[in-house]
Amino acid sequence: MGNERSMINKNSHTSQSMKAVCLLSGGLDSCVTACIAKNAGYELYALTFDYGQRNSREIKSSFSVASAIGVHEHRIVKLDLSWIGGSALTDVSIDMPERGSAEEIVYNKSIPISYVPMRNTVFLSVGGAYAEAIGADVVFIGANEVDYSHYPDCRSEYFDAVRRVFHMGSKRGVEGAPVGIVTPLIAMSKAEIVRRGMELDAPLDLTWSCYSGGSIACGRCDSCLLRLKGFHEAGAEDPLDYESGKV
Amino acid sequence: MGNERSMINKNSHTSQSMKAVCLLSGGLDSCVTACIAKNAGYELYALTFDYGQRNSREIKSSFSVASAIGVHEHRIVKLDLSWIGGSALTDVSIDMPERGSAEEIVYNKSIPISYVPMRNTVFLSVGGAYAEAIGADVVFIGANEVDYSHYPDCRSEYFDAVRRVFHMGSKRGVEGAPVGIVTPLIAMSKAEIVRRGMELDAPLDLTWSCYSGGSIACGRCDSCLLRLKGFHEAGAEDPLDYESGKV
Repeated sequence: MGNERSMINKNSHTSQSMKAVCLLSGGLDSCVTACIAKNAGYELYALTFDYGQRNSREIKSSFSVASAIGVHEHRIVKLDLSWIGGSALTDVSIDMPERGSAEEIVYNKSIPISYVPMRNTVFLSVGGAYAEAIGADVVFIGANEVDYSHYPDCRSEYFDAVRRVFHMGSKRGVEGAPVGIVTPLIAMSKAEIVRRGMELDAPLDLTWSCYSGGSIACGRCDSCLLRLKGFHEAGAEDPLDYESGKV
Repeated sequence: MGNERSMINKNSHTSQSMKAVCLLSGGLDSCVTACIAKNAGYELYALTFDYGQRNSREIKSSFSVASAIGVHEHRIVKLDLSWIGGSALTDVSIDMPERGSAEEIVYNKSIPISYVPMRNTVFLSVGGAYAEAIGADVVFIGANEVDYSHYPDCRSEYFDAVRRVFHMGSKRGVEGAPVGIVTPLIAMSKAEIVRRGMELDAPLDLTWSCYSGGSIACGRCDSCLLRLKGFHEAGAEDPLDYESGKV
C-alpha cells in the first residue's frame, strides 16, 4: 500500500453502482462536488492529495467530509510537490498575499502566487489512472472559473484538453469508453456553490478553505475572502470561526 | 524534500544553459534520449519515478546512467501506483507474459498486461510541473511507437494532446511559452535506437530493461526480447548478461 492510506466503507458498496472518482481536498468546493456526485447516484471513490501543502488541516477535513458524505473508499495519495517550489501554497518562505476584499481578487487578472505548477494536471492524471483501474466512468473535480478564473488549470478549455488526453492515452480511451471528467461547479459563483451545498445538506461545517495553515481560518487570504463572500451573497452564515471575524 | 532524493552536480551547471527535464527510467530508451538531449546542448534535470514497479533494479540503473551522462540534477519521485493495480508491472500476482519471439510482440496488436493505467500522463504531469518551476523549455521522454505501438500513451497523437494540456493548463502556457514535450525516439526502430546510442557513447551497459525483477535479465519478457532484437538488428552485442543467453 506504500504511501497512501485508505478507508473502505464496506456497507456502502453495491456491485451495481456506477463508480466515480472524486477529488476531495477537504475544501468547500470539493465537498459540494462530492455531494452532487453522490446525489446523482454514484458510488464515490474519494482521492485526497498530501502534496506538501501548508494548509495540511485541509487533509484532516477531507476525512471528516468523506465520512459524513458516506464514500465507498477514501485514499490519501502522498506526492510531495513542495520540492518543485514556486508557489505560496507549498513554500512557507513565500508570503501568502492579503488583499483588502474579495472584489480585489476577482478583478485582478494575474495568476496568483498560490498557483502550483500544473497541479490539476497531476491530480487528474492520478485520478484518471485510479478511475481506469477500478472501472469508474468519471472523475469529478470541483473547479470553477467564475469567481476565481486566474488559475489556468481551472478553465473549461483546459478540461477539454485533459479529456482528450484521457481519450488518446488510455486503454479505456482506445476501447471507445474513456474516463470522463465532470466539473459540476465550473460555471457557478461561490454563492451558487454555497446554496447548492445547503440544498444537498453538504457538511460545509467540516470543510476547510483557509490557505494560511493556522488552527483558525484567517479570514484574510484569497480563499477565506472568497468563501466569506460566497456565504454572504447566498444569505447564509459560514459555520466556521474566523480570526478576523466574519467580515 | 519529503519523499524524493536528489543528486546535484554543481560542476555541470552553467547559468546560460538551456534546461531540459528528462524522464529517466534507467532503461535503454530513456538513456539514449538523455544522451540526445545532452548532445543538443541541454543542461539535464533527470526525473526517475519510484512507482512500485517490480523491476526496481531499473531505479538503481537510473543513478548510474545519470552519473555517467553527467546530468545537472537527478530527482527520484516516490509516487506509489501499485495500489491502483491492474498491471503486471506493479502487481506481482499478475504473471508477466512470456512469448516466443519479439515478432510475436510486434504483431500482436492488443494492449499488453504490462500497461500501467495512464502512466505516461502521470509522469509527464510531474515532469511538466518541474519544468515550469525551474524554467526548463522542454520535457524529454523516450517513448517510441514503432516496434511496440500497443501502449496508447506512446503514440504521437497522444503526445500532441498532452502538449495542448501544457499549453492550456499552465502559467507558462498562458504567457505564450508552454513547456514543450520532445520525443526523439518516437519514429525509430529499436535497432535505430541502439545505433544512435552507440554513436553518442551512451552508457548502454548501465541500463536495465527487464520487466521481471530478477538479478539477471530474464531474456524472455517483452522488454528483453525487443531489446535483444534491437541489438541483433543493429549488428551489435548487448553488453548485458541474460538468464536465457543472448538468443
